[in-house]
Amino acid sequence: MVNEWGFSSPIGNDSERQTKEAVSVLGLGPMGQALAGAFLKNGHPVTVWNRTPGKSDELTRQGAVLAESVTDAAAASELIIICVLDYNAVRSILSPAVEELKGRTVINLTADTPERAREMAGWASANGIDYVDGAIMTPTPTIGEATAVILYSGSEDVYLRHRQTLASLGGKASYLGSDPGRAAAYDITLLNLYWTAMNGYMHSLALARAENIAASDLAPYAHGIVAIMPAIMTQLAEEADRGVYPGDRSNIISAAASMEHITHVAEHHGLDSSILGAGLTVANKAIQAGFGEEGFSRLVEFHKR
Amino acid sequence: MVNEWGFSSPIGNDSERQTKEAVSVLGLGPMGQALAGAFLKNGHPVTVWNRTPGKSDELTRQGAVLAESVTDAAAASELIIICVLDYNAVRSILSPAVEELKGRTVINLTADTPERAREMAGWASANGIDYVDGAIMTPTPTIGEATAVILYSGSEDVYLRHRQTLASLGGKASYLGSDPGRAAAYDITLLNLYWTAMNGYMHSLALARAENIAASDLAPYAHGIVAIMPAIMTQLAEEADRGVYPGDRSNIISAAASMEHITHVAEHHGLDSSILGAGLTVANKAIQAGFGEEGFSRLVEFHKR
Repeated sequence: MVNEWGFSSPIGNDSERQTKEAVSVLGLGPMGQALAGAFLKNGHPVTVWNRTPGKSDELTRQGAVLAESVTDAAAASELIIICVLDYNAVRSILSPAVEELKGRTVINLTADTPERAREMAGWASANGIDYVDGAIMTPTPTIGEATAVILYSGSEDVYLRHRQTLASLGGKASYLGSDPGRAAAYDITLLNLYWTAMNGYMHSLALARAENIAASDLAPYAHGIVAIMPAIMTQLAEEADRGVYPGDRSNIISAAASMEHITHVAEHHGLDSSILGAGLTVANKAIQAGFGEEGFSRLVEFHKR
Repeated sequence: MVNEWGFSSPIGNDSERQTKEAVSVLGLGPMGQALAGAFLKNGHPVTVWNRTPGKSDELTRQGAVLAESVTDAAAASELIIICVLDYNAVRSILSPAVEELKGRTVINLTADTPERAREMAGWASANGIDYVDGAIMTPTPTIGEATAVILYSGSEDVYLRHRQTLASLGGKASYLGSDPGRAAAYDITLLNLYWTAMNGYMHSLALARAENIAASDLAPYAHGIVAIMPAIMTQLAEEADRGVYPGDRSNIISAAASMEHITHVAEHHGLDSSILGAGLTVANKAIQAGFGEEGFSRLVEFHKR
């Protein structure tokens, strides 16, 4: 970071800490600790609180102040960041401090559903609390680094007022618009991709094990599979947006045939094949509806119940 | 490529074609055409055959000879490459030419199961045909390029005898050992990853659509998700091989909670959530067995029926 004389200093110091916005961080799980650590490293005065004790030692050693209650933590900073298990926890943590929170900003980086993000924004508004909802898309080691991806949505004024402070959390902050549920909506769709892919990967490691292939022998080839995906994803997204699903390069019938091969091998090895089997069912619905010769992107329309 | 005087020439010419191994390519679907095209481009004499006519015009224009029968194609080259729909098709195509194939090499780049690859190798051996099984891991545009990944397994002697010719197909050829089913086993496990991830992606696009997010707005973030996967995959593979599943950074309980959030949102939007739901069932089995605090890699042991 660059201070007011244009000098770059890698670690925040006491004089700098007085010029940077104060932040309170509620919730000191691995992600909460990473968030508080990034604010400290960038010279912000940081107050921390956690429901159970013993999570703040490293942070207080680095200069954080431990608050004894949420009320104290809320009183310490204009900006309160909360990152806990889910929105039920957010509500039960914030409710007792609602008077102190009035007129301050809560940025909620807890992961939950778009609907609950909108509800939480409504609750905050009804209580005079400025509110922005956020979603952290990258793992804890990225926080404070260029590779971090954090999405925000909700009040643009509130976001812009704290944008510079939020920049301490690293890389690619993206403001997605005034709907407070939008960050959570992106989060949910992207986590759906992540967990489905990871479930597929674990199933692949189980299949590899059944074929006496060491997981570490397979992993480099799995990287190769992952490497071809972005270009294909871009193309499928364009087709889905246009509603035009060309099947000239590969079609749903050939995809289904490939999936069927795989489920047979998995079952032959006594493995459960229900993850890929569920995808095959979607493909077969599209084939039965007469779209077998169209491209895989047509399946965007066949994930309805 | 470099000729015997050390000069590099980008396109094969007639004099060069006489010094390169002749190849016959059976099956002229998009992949078979790409394979034949790569051999031609690298100066090999190429004979082609397809069950239905009209697929060879571009290849014959580039110098390929169209065989009228599989018997003729087999007689034209020591090395026969076949790439068709599945091994049933391979068997029905090769069987009538079994006399001409005796003493020649068949490299079967058709995708099918490891068991059927082993059966096919047995059939070839019983008929005096040298046989190597292969699996093409990358799409047609990569064939002949550095990005191609083709796996081979089966007789090492046969593979080594034709390795230089196979190099014309591009990038990263990998010989995986003498078990003829091994290339197909890698293929199946990697395709399982690919199709599961792609099913997840289409489900994500359906979710995004329900949340009024354009697919093309989501795609760049999907690339970001894909970008974090290789490092995680390597780590999970190491844990799976060691049989040690540390849950200190994230555990199965938190993964299951995340998956549950997503399935609720999907169902709220009237979407089918059975793909991710099947993964959640696997995670819940592990939690019920007492492994909830362990790492996600533990799930490699819970994909059994």
